[in-house]
Amino acid sequence: MTVVASIDPRTGTRGEVVAEETGAAELDRLCRAAADAAGWLEAAGRDFRAGLLRRMADALEARGEDIVATADRETAIGPTRLGGELRRTCYQLRLFAEVLEEGSYLEATIDPPGETPMGPRPDLRRMLVPIGPVAVFGASNFPLAFSVPGGDTASALAVGCPVVIKAHESHPATSELCFSIMRGAADELGCPEGTLSLVHGRQAGADLVSHPEIRAVAFTGSPAGGRALFDLINRRPDPIPFYGELGSINPVIVTPGAADERAAAIAEGLVGSFTVAAGQLCTKPGVVLVPRSAGGDALVEAVSAAVGATGDQVLLNERIAADYASTTGRLRTLPSVSVVAQGEGSAADGFRAAPLLLSVDVENLDDAVTGECFGPMTVLVRYDGEDELAAAVAKLPSSLTAAVHSAPAEGELTGRLTDLLRRVAGRLIYDGFPTGVSVSWAQHHGGPWPATNSLHTSVGTSAVRRFLRPTAWQDAPQHVLPAELRDGSVDVPRRIDGRLQLPE
Amino acid sequence: MTVVASIDPRTGTRGEVVAEETGAAELDRLCRAAADAAGWLEAAGRDFRAGLLRRMADALEARGEDIVATADRETAIGPTRLGGELRRTCYQLRLFAEVLEEGSYLEATIDPPGETPMGPRPDLRRMLVPIGPVAVFGASNFPLAFSVPGGDTASALAVGCPVVIKAHESHPATSELCFSIMRGAADELGCPEGTLSLVHGRQAGADLVSHPEIRAVAFTGSPAGGRALFDLINRRPDPIPFYGELGSINPVIVTPGAADERAAAIAEGLVGSFTVAAGQLCTKPGVVLVPRSAGGDALVEAVSAAVGATGDQVLLNERIAADYASTTGRLRTLPSVSVVAQGEGSAADGFRAAPLLLSVDVENLDDAVTGECFGPMTVLVRYDGEDELAAAVAKLPSSLTAAVHSAPAEGELTGRLTDLLRRVAGRLIYDGFPTGVSVSWAQHHGGPWPATNSLHTSVGTSAVRRFLRPTAWQDAPQHVLPAELRDGSVDVPRRIDGRLQLPE
Repeated sequence: MTVVASIDPRTGTRGEVVAEETGAAELDRLCRAAADAAGWLEAAGRDFRAGLLRRMADALEARGEDIVATADRETAIGPTRLGGELRRTCYQLRLFAEVLEEGSYLEATIDPPGETPMGPRPDLRRMLVPIGPVAVFGASNFPLAFSVPGGDTASALAVGCPVVIKAHESHPATSELCFSIMRGAADELGCPEGTLSLVHGRQAGADLVSHPEIRAVAFTGSPAGGRALFDLINRRPDPIPFYGELGSINPVIVTPGAADERAAAIAEGLVGSFTVAAGQLCTKPGVVLVPRSAGGDALVEAVSAAVGATGDQVLLNERIAADYASTTGRLRTLPSVSVVAQGEGSAADGFRAAPLLLSVDVENLDDAVTGECFGPMTVLVRYDGEDELAAAVAKLPSSLTAAVHSAPAEGELTGRLTDLLRRVAGRLIYDGFPTGVSVSWAQHHGGPWPATNSLHTSVGTSAVRRFLRPTAWQDAPQHVLPAELRDGSVDVPRRIDGRLQLPE
Repeated sequence: MTVVASIDPRTGTRGEVVAEETGAAELDRLCRAAADAAGWLEAAGRDFRAGLLRRMADALEARGEDIVATADRETAIGPTRLGGELRRTCYQLRLFAEVLEEGSYLEATIDPPGETPMGPRPDLRRMLVPIGPVAVFGASNFPLAFSVPGGDTASALAVGCPVVIKAHESHPATSELCFSIMRGAADELGCPEGTLSLVHGRQAGADLVSHPEIRAVAFTGSPAGGRALFDLINRRPDPIPFYGELGSINPVIVTPGAADERAAAIAEGLVGSFTVAAGQLCTKPGVVLVPRSAGGDALVEAVSAAVGATGDQVLLNERIAADYASTTGRLRTLPSVSVVAQGEGSAADGFRAAPLLLSVDVENLDDAVTGECFGPMTVLVRYDGEDELAAAVAKLPSSLTAAVHSAPAEGELTGRLTDLLRRVAGRLIYDGFPTGVSVSWAQHHGGPWPATNSLHTSVGTSAVRRFLRPTAWQDAPQHVLPAELRDGSVDVPRRIDGRLQLPE
C-alpha cells in the first residue's frame, strides 16, 4: 500500500503518515455503500438533513482549534485566514440548512388535469429529487471551504446525495480530521455508513469518477486535472455530469477616470488582491488593464513600489511552487514581456515565491500570458483609448470574474464595458476586487469554459442544483407522491397550474 | 454541391431537390451572424420575444394546410397526427411566451449589502442570461414539434438565444417551409438575419457543434448519433453543454391485480401505445412486464390477437426500416426470444414494418433485448411473484418513462414499484401509457443516460433552463443592471435577501 503523509510547505519536510491510498476493492465498497445510503438519506427528509448540516457545523466549530492548527501545518495559509475559512465553511453548512427549510429548490410543480388546446392533460406533478451518490474532489487552496467540509459536500448532502470525497494530497490530515468530525455527527444522528466517505490517492480518484454508482462529480482544481477527469467521465458507458471549476484570469480594468481619481487606492487594493493567500485564489486578478495616462503611470508606480517592498510567500505545495517558477521563468524570457517589479526572494526552506509584476502590450496579449498561474504574480496591460481597451478585452479568455474601476462621470464607458465583459465572465465587480467571494443567494462563481464547464457551481445556494434531477408523476395516487407534491397545503413554494404560490 | 431531396416513405421514391448541403463557408457565416444577433435579441426584451413567438405560431397556423401536406409527403405520419403535432408546436411557442411574461425563469435574486457571520457582504444581484447561439438538431419522428419550429428552437429563442437548426434529412422540404414561415415572422418584427438559420447535411451538423460561436447543442435522436455529437463537442477546446435525448425502452408493468381486473382494457391501450406512429416515438413501451397468471394470460392473448390482426405500417425513412428489419431479425434468431404474435406484411412499396410481439424470460432480459428499436414491436416479460418482478426491473436500462398498472388494493406494491422505478425513469405513469407527452409546467421528458444526458430537456417549460447561464453583479451602478435587477418594483418574482417575493 502506498502511504499518504503531510508535507510542511514552510520547510518541505515530510511528516507522519496519515492514511493509505484507497485500493480498488475498498473504493468499490464505499461507492456501493453510498448507493445503499441514498434512499435512506432522501427519505430522512429536509428537516432531518438540515439538522445534520447544523450538527456538522457545530461539531467542526467545537474542534476549530485543532482544525486550524492541522490545516496551517499542511498548507501554511496561516491561522487568521484559516479561522475565517472555517467560519465560512460552517456558515455555508447552515445556509444550506436554510435552503432546505425554504424549499424552493425542489421546484414543486403541479398541473391539474384538464383540457388544453392540445387535448386533455393528465394530472402532472414534478419535483427535483437527489441525483444519487456524488464524488467530490477537494481543492488545494481551500482545505476547508472547498474540501472535505466544503460547498460541494454541503450542497450534495443537503439535497440527499451521499458523498464520496477524494482528499487533496496537499492536506490529508486536515481531510481526515474534518471527515472524522462530520462522520461523528452523522453517526450520532443514525445516518448509514455510506452517507459520507473519504478516499486518498490519484488512482482512487480516477476509479471514483468511473464507478457505476457515482452519479455526478464536483471538482475544483487545475484546467489540466479537470480536463483529465472530464475525459474519463465522458468515456463511461453512461456519462454523468461533471461540475468543474478550472481556471480563471479575472481581468481588472481601470478606466482613465478611475486612474486619475484614485490611483493609490486602486493600487493598494490590487496588490492586496493578487498577493492574498500568496496569489493562490481562483479569483486572483491575473491581468490588469491600465490606461496610458498620468493616472495610469501613478497606479503602476504605486503597485511596483508595493511589489518591490514585499518579500516571498509560502505556497501550498511543491507542484504549485514548481509551476510558479516555470511559468514566471518562461514569461521572463518572452521578448514581449517586461518585468515591471519584483519582490525579494529569501533563501529560506519550503515552497516559496516572490511577488512579480509583469507587463505586455495589447498586441502581445495572448494565450502565453493569459493562462491561470497560481502565485503572487499579475500582468499589466497598458492601453491607449477605448478601441485598444476593447481589443484587449476581446483577447481575454473567459473568467469567473471581471472587475471595472471607473469614475462616476464615466457611466457610458462603464455600460459599454459591462456589455463586453458580460460575455466572458460570470461575476462583474464594480470598483472592487474579485478575491473574497461571498456565500449567498445571489452569488455566482462560474463563467464560460475554462472558468467552469457548468451553469451552477459550488458557491452560493444554487450549488444544490447540480445534484438534483427532475422527476414527474402522472396520475399518481397520493400515497406514492413525495409529501411536497401531495394535495393540500405544504411548507414550500409551489407552482400550481402555472402560478407560483408561496406557502401560507 | 450535394443536393438534398425529399423521399416519399410510402413509395421509396426520391422527389424534387429541396436544397443543397450547407458548405463550410456558409456554415461559418451563419454561426457568426447568430453571434452578431445575440446581443440584439437579448436587448429586445421579454415582451418583444413573447410577441415574436406568438407571431411565429400565428404564421405557422396560417400555413397549416401546406405544412401538414408537405410533412405528410415526407414522413407518411398522416394528416390527423400531423395536424395535432402542429397544434402542439404552436401551443408550445405560445406557452414559452407565457414563461417569458411570468419571468420566474430569470431567477432574479438580490442580496443587499450587510454584515454576515463571514464578514461584510457587498451588494450582489444575480440573474440568468442567454447562453448565446444554440445549435438545434431536428428529429425524424416529429417533423414539427421536435424539428425546425419545435421545443428546442422555441425555448432557445424565448430566452434570447439565436438558433442555427440542422434540418433532419428525412424532411428537408418541411424544414425549409417552416423555416421560411418563421424567418418571415422574424423579419416582419425587424430581427437580425442571424436570429434563425437552417443548415442541411451531415458535415454541416458536425461543423456546427464544433463552431466556436455555438454555445449549446440540443439534439433528439438515436443513441449512436447523439454519442457521436457528444464526443465531437467534448473534443472542442471549450466543451459546451450538449442536451441530448437519446434512447428509451419505457417499461410498462402490469401487476397481478391489474391483469385480473382489466386485462382487455390494458391490452387495448398497450397495442395502441406501441403501434401509434408506427412505434417510432421515444416513449414507445419497448418492454412489458406481465404476471404469470390467468389475468396475465388473458392480457397476452388480447395483445396477440390485436397484433395478428394489424397490417404493416409505413416507417419514416429507409434507415429506420432497415434497422427495424435487422433488429427484429436478430431477435428472432435468439434462442431466448419467442415470437408471440406478428402482423401481416404487405408486398407494397415503401419503408414498411409489420407489428411484432416477442417474449423473453426474466433471466434472459439483457442488453440484447432492451435496446431502443423504432417500429411497432414490443417485448413481453412474464414474471412470477414480486421478487422476479423486482429482478426484471433491476435489469432495465434507464428510460424517459415507466408505467405501472395496478389495482386499488395493491397500494403497497405500487409504492414499492415507485421506489424502484424512480431511480431509472424521469416520468412515472400510473394506469396509463407513456406515449402522448403533454407540454406543461410540470412535465419532464428525461431520465438518466441513455434516456438523456441532461437534467432539463426539450419538453415543458423547464426547457428554457438549458439555454441560460447565471451572471452576478457586485456593487453595480443601477444603469448597468438588467431591468429586472434594478431597485424598485418589477413584474417578475424575485428573491430578496433570501425571501421569495411575488410581483404586486
